[in-house]
Amino acid sequence: METTATTAPTGETGGPSTRMASEIAEQPAAARRTLEHLLPEQPRLRDLAGDRRRVLLVARGSSDNAAIYGRYLLEVAAGVPAALAAPSVATHYRARLDLSDTVVVSVSQSGSTAEIVETQRWARECGAATVSVTNVADSPLAAAADVALVTQAGPEVAVPATKTYLTQMVALAVLADALAGEGADGLAADLDRVPDAVAALLGADVSAASEALAGSERVVVSGRGLLLGTALETALKMEETCLRPVRGYSYADLRHGPISVVSEGLLAVLVGAAHGPLAEPMADLVRDLRGRGARVLGIGGTPSFADLCDLHLAGPDLPETVEPIASIVPSQLMIEQMALRMGLDPDNPRGLNKVTQTDVTG
Amino acid sequence: METTATTAPTGETGGPSTRMASEIAEQPAAARRTLEHLLPEQPRLRDLAGDRRRVLLVARGSSDNAAIYGRYLLEVAAGVPAALAAPSVATHYRARLDLSDTVVVSVSQSGSTAEIVETQRWARECGAATVSVTNVADSPLAAAADVALVTQAGPEVAVPATKTYLTQMVALAVLADALAGEGADGLAADLDRVPDAVAALLGADVSAASEALAGSERVVVSGRGLLLGTALETALKMEETCLRPVRGYSYADLRHGPISVVSEGLLAVLVGAAHGPLAEPMADLVRDLRGRGARVLGIGGTPSFADLCDLHLAGPDLPETVEPIASIVPSQLMIEQMALRMGLDPDNPRGLNKVTQTDVTG
Repeated sequence: METTATTAPTGETGGPSTRMASEIAEQPAAARRTLEHLLPEQPRLRDLAGDRRRVLLVARGSSDNAAIYGRYLLEVAAGVPAALAAPSVATHYRARLDLSDTVVVSVSQSGSTAEIVETQRWARECGAATVSVTNVADSPLAAAADVALVTQAGPEVAVPATKTYLTQMVALAVLADALAGEGADGLAADLDRVPDAVAALLGADVSAASEALAGSERVVVSGRGLLLGTALETALKMEETCLRPVRGYSYADLRHGPISVVSEGLLAVLVGAAHGPLAEPMADLVRDLRGRGARVLGIGGTPSFADLCDLHLAGPDLPETVEPIASIVPSQLMIEQMALRMGLDPDNPRGLNKVTQTDVTG
Repeated sequence: METTATTAPTGETGGPSTRMASEIAEQPAAARRTLEHLLPEQPRLRDLAGDRRRVLLVARGSSDNAAIYGRYLLEVAAGVPAALAAPSVATHYRARLDLSDTVVVSVSQSGSTAEIVETQRWARECGAATVSVTNVADSPLAAAADVALVTQAGPEVAVPATKTYLTQMVALAVLADALAGEGADGLAADLDRVPDAVAALLGADVSAASEALAGSERVVVSGRGLLLGTALETALKMEETCLRPVRGYSYADLRHGPISVVSEGLLAVLVGAAHGPLAEPMADLVRDLRGRGARVLGIGGTPSFADLCDLHLAGPDLPETVEPIASIVPSQLMIEQMALRMGLDPDNPRGLNKVTQTDVTG
């Protein structure tokens, strides 16, 4: 399935015509390589954590969305309290916190984003054990970490992160599995099913979904719990690739107030859970949004969720704990096609560089 | 300054014509009453916390934005690691976490949102000490908390939270001050200045700002660090009150990828810091956004930040740690006027109830 990019994107749907499409198609192999490379690191991760029973995740952008999945998975599947760091507390306010009970996990595709490197250094000074998740083995972030988890996505050329994002989630699931307390169900057998589940999604027909998105000025995306990261990454990817503001909401946050912005003409993309305690509530949200005049494009979820949606793309056939690793794939496919329909080059959206910096240098 | 609402809003700018405007004007007194009521609770908060050196905040909607301020303040000013809870971990996944080292702080204006009440009960079962921040003394959330911090905003009739949001921040600052370790600078003297600083902002002329907002289809809001909550609350309030999707971004997240959506025709509202390590970076962001063709409406910040903006509203004259409590006031004023200019009733936006529920009953 690995093809190299041709010259300019053509907008035809006959096969990968962009780097982004090629890199999406490489994901089953990338996930498999990453699993095989990282599962042997689990004893080192357990040794490093020792009695530390908390995880603090440090990331930006797509990596932040992978970290949100990692946070839920650590709490739900491993029983480890987890949170996302606020990097400015480290880089700008230079707060001194006692992190001696904490494993700090820094996630960055390049491993070179200065803000993340600096926050990892700060965490170590605060007493944390440090783990990095990067796609670049000789990056500053990997070099400075106590344990470096290097994803095996291979070089990513398209600006929108796809295979590096997916393999970051694989790495975080390997970490959560390593840190799970006695008695927790192991994730290893479920993780082994991920590459094939990703491959099964690659042939999806996204033409109706991408056509609807390209023609919609107002789009919101929602999901919840383990799948919140997928919803936020879908929104971010649409912003980066298609240059339109798209809001990603937690299902509960959307219900709480912003539901008032939902009206005729809105297209809501909902990422449904196929199993677990959030499967049914997502179907209720479809009914609510349609009742307010919105069209709903569903991804994954239960059969009844799918039936309720105006448009629907199948999700992965995986248990809820590892489902989010693969559930981004339909979004990636439809966003690549959406960009082409809009006359944009998904490989090189305006204003983005591959190594992102915020404002920390050094 | 307290006036009762007249009948229909008139759109005139001669004085409070809506409940929302009246409640905005009540904030200096509400902040003063809340301070006087809650400062005597500090010894109980210290006793409750004991050796617990972590805080987990539980909230939704506007309360969530107050909690985001609380999180930064706890880390930056009190040296206490703090994070926002993911309620679905409690209410849907029913994860079992060891929170015996944690004070869980639940924030809800009504104290009746079932999801928050249930998450507080879960936290206690996980070993946490519990503190509630509500505006209703006899609410379920207050009744079940180890320490109930009851804000003294008085009844809030308009659907958009204003004085309850501001007094929640007062309560969280009282909490942070109580939990600060030895050697931290106390906040009490700075908090005493807040009511007058709020009062000084009430007379601001927001006509140009509200006119610009009412005429802009595409609006984003950004801030960072201690002022991130103000930016997110400004965005949420615009969504709830003016029924338009408005995206709130951390300054750093905006820089990281979504900057690609910034182009001609966008109005960016930036909440600037007047002091502290994020004051200068916000001026850089103004230059960047204007260079991409956006117009910038600044609130607060340094004199050089103000000079760079296309439109500007003065912020409070307060130290950075308590500045965010008052920095929401210019946003409240301009959003109330923005709604009137759009022919909307700010007191009763479509589709919202005062006690919000997501999907947990019981």
